[in-house]
Amino acid sequence: MNSELITKGELAKKAARTLAVTDAGTKNKALSAIADGLEENAAYIIEENKKDLENAKQKGIAAAMLDRLMLDEKRIAGMAEGIRQVAALPDPIGEVLGMVKRPNGLVIGKTRVPLGVIGIIYEARPNVTADAAALCVKAGNAVILRGGSEAIHSNIAIVKVMNAAGEGAGLPHGAISLIENTSREAAVELMKMNGYIDVLIPRGGAGLIKTVVQNATVPVIETGTGNCHVYVEKTADLDMAQNIIINAKTSRPSVCNAAETLLVDRAAAKDFLPKTLAALQAKGVEIRGCAESAAIFPGIRAATEEDWATEYNDYILAVKVVGGIGEAIDHITAYGTKHSEAIVTTDYNMSQKFLAEVDAAAVYVNASTRFTDGFEFGFGAEIGISTQKIHARGPMGLPELTTIKYIIYGNGQVR
Amino acid sequence: MNSELITKGELAKKAARTLAVTDAGTKNKALSAIADGLEENAAYIIEENKKDLENAKQKGIAAAMLDRLMLDEKRIAGMAEGIRQVAALPDPIGEVLGMVKRPNGLVIGKTRVPLGVIGIIYEARPNVTADAAALCVKAGNAVILRGGSEAIHSNIAIVKVMNAAGEGAGLPHGAISLIENTSREAAVELMKMNGYIDVLIPRGGAGLIKTVVQNATVPVIETGTGNCHVYVEKTADLDMAQNIIINAKTSRPSVCNAAETLLVDRAAAKDFLPKTLAALQAKGVEIRGCAESAAIFPGIRAATEEDWATEYNDYILAVKVVGGIGEAIDHITAYGTKHSEAIVTTDYNMSQKFLAEVDAAAVYVNASTRFTDGFEFGFGAEIGISTQKIHARGPMGLPELTTIKYIIYGNGQVR
Repeated sequence: MNSELITKGELAKKAARTLAVTDAGTKNKALSAIADGLEENAAYIIEENKKDLENAKQKGIAAAMLDRLMLDEKRIAGMAEGIRQVAALPDPIGEVLGMVKRPNGLVIGKTRVPLGVIGIIYEARPNVTADAAALCVKAGNAVILRGGSEAIHSNIAIVKVMNAAGEGAGLPHGAISLIENTSREAAVELMKMNGYIDVLIPRGGAGLIKTVVQNATVPVIETGTGNCHVYVEKTADLDMAQNIIINAKTSRPSVCNAAETLLVDRAAAKDFLPKTLAALQAKGVEIRGCAESAAIFPGIRAATEEDWATEYNDYILAVKVVGGIGEAIDHITAYGTKHSEAIVTTDYNMSQKFLAEVDAAAVYVNASTRFTDGFEFGFGAEIGISTQKIHARGPMGLPELTTIKYIIYGNGQVR
Repeated sequence: MNSELITKGELAKKAARTLAVTDAGTKNKALSAIADGLEENAAYIIEENKKDLENAKQKGIAAAMLDRLMLDEKRIAGMAEGIRQVAALPDPIGEVLGMVKRPNGLVIGKTRVPLGVIGIIYEARPNVTADAAALCVKAGNAVILRGGSEAIHSNIAIVKVMNAAGEGAGLPHGAISLIENTSREAAVELMKMNGYIDVLIPRGGAGLIKTVVQNATVPVIETGTGNCHVYVEKTADLDMAQNIIINAKTSRPSVCNAAETLLVDRAAAKDFLPKTLAALQAKGVEIRGCAESAAIFPGIRAATEEDWATEYNDYILAVKVVGGIGEAIDHITAYGTKHSEAIVTTDYNMSQKFLAEVDAAAVYVNASTRFTDGFEFGFGAEIGISTQKIHARGPMGLPELTTIKYIIYGNGQVR
């Protein structure tokens, strides 16, 4: 393993031991100091960010990507504000989730403790650096960050400022570290740091997630790929249904909880599709439909097998007419990514069937899929949205950055 | 991928959809039928088991291993009884863990659902086949079993009997399947069945666990390696301490919650070690000690660096004199496997420090490490003991074989 990884891994392990027993007051004071530090050092961070922007421009990177990379005073203030909000959240650590007295007199308690060392692998957006570090530290974990090469100057600057402020306010050295080697080799080595990293959370596109899942030997929490559906059942309030699909598709198409496919019952298709698809087109959405929807709303591109499986993250919507809820659920089961799925219906039995039989992190009746989000769910924070089933599912807040420990009080019991 | 894996993977996925909405009554009836089926077909299972025993004998396999492999009427009755106990446990599925109404009127509930398809990779003991399958099915999951080649005839017979009885009583076809190809290649392919298997649980020795962690791309729950310590603090009741270390070491040395190293405070060593180590030797325990303990109790073998790191699973105990609780916790942090750790003390502050600072699934004050067990904890069942931090930690009962799903009731909300 390369020496940067070993050095930072050892430091993180050591810091995690201290952080696990650091009280909430100290952690919160350190987070406030970090927020202040980021604002006070905004000019330095912006200067370093300019180097990344210059490099990106020279590489001919797309404007949308440049925008994600860019930091200004307002965005840095936003990062600081996010950290202050995390500081204000209740500390999850030390909560006793249950305690029982066994017949032999042993008292067995289940308490919430930090995971230990969390690795975060992410892409271009430098605000993730501050955001993820604050959440990990609040939950008592040390964090090893590995951002993309495009943002390396910005990330180094942000972590330098966070550490100066945080350590000054009582955080142990090594609580937050950044892997500065942005090679693919170093990333793959990071994914195999068993004994140093307790869990690895990739945040980014499908390619990054896949690389992590294929290569990691440390436990991984997969996040964020969403091929979400809105199913308009035949008894749906069609105005509500139109409102929901327009919101789910167009309010922010680039995110994982945006809808990618509209499923419509045959019995409602003729009433629903012409008006709704025209409204979507008016918002700039390209429609790709099955033969039946094209017969009802001509002139659209034919959807292929690939369309059903694609997370567009763009102003494109696949449309399919189905014979009823069974066919809708079969389609979702075959092509969905178990992220967020919605039914629009006025039929009680249909709503219950959909909630019971659709296997996804979040299943909605009569609401937009766009609500799958830690803030919208009331968690006050979010480190990502888990699309796997173990440890965490759906939006992950602070409790998802913890584990449990059994503490057992005896008076000499043997077995 | 080989065709057996694909066929059984597809069947398991399909069965999992049905099992997820199968009521507790049907599952329990099927489990009872399976228990009856095993007893009724004991002669057939024993006959098939004899083939495995013959093969094992020809390969010159050790007597202890032969004993683990052997099935007789009594052991089959024990398997059936275990399944009846699982049937009698409360169904974890459908429990609503919380429900909130958000300011926008959305009602967000968190409900317990099955994981889906669970893969279990295990070694020689054929009783795991029945035991693991029953637990998975009770929690609404389909299960794909992959046992060792030594037990293949027994496993095929057990699964055949379970399926005939279970499907006759309403279990979907594919709920329980066994991979009959026992090659290493098929096992490695099983570990990479993303999209088919939701979680893989290896049950067996350190070698098996390591192979799974290194090769799996599906999420894994590591189980069972335990290098556990008993730390005798200087204020300990020394009779209690002796009782605890003798129990932790000798009541069943082959299991993961047995103690492997005794740590003793310098201030208590001269009083404690001579009598206790003699008592351990009288029970057939070989002592390997640090220089200081050898000075107090001469004639023992010197412990090496390797001894501190070894899970003996045998009548061997490493012994080290330490300068106090800090040194004890440092030793445990360096060499422990985060399974079960115990302190014996009468000092309140020492007990609290040990509980807070030792990072392990189960941390004990004044009790034997041998209690880390699903039955001893009152879970009524156990699929294994997780030594990783995500999803489950410590003894895993039925709730650890489930995940959650958010169900959201709206009335037209958009974002």
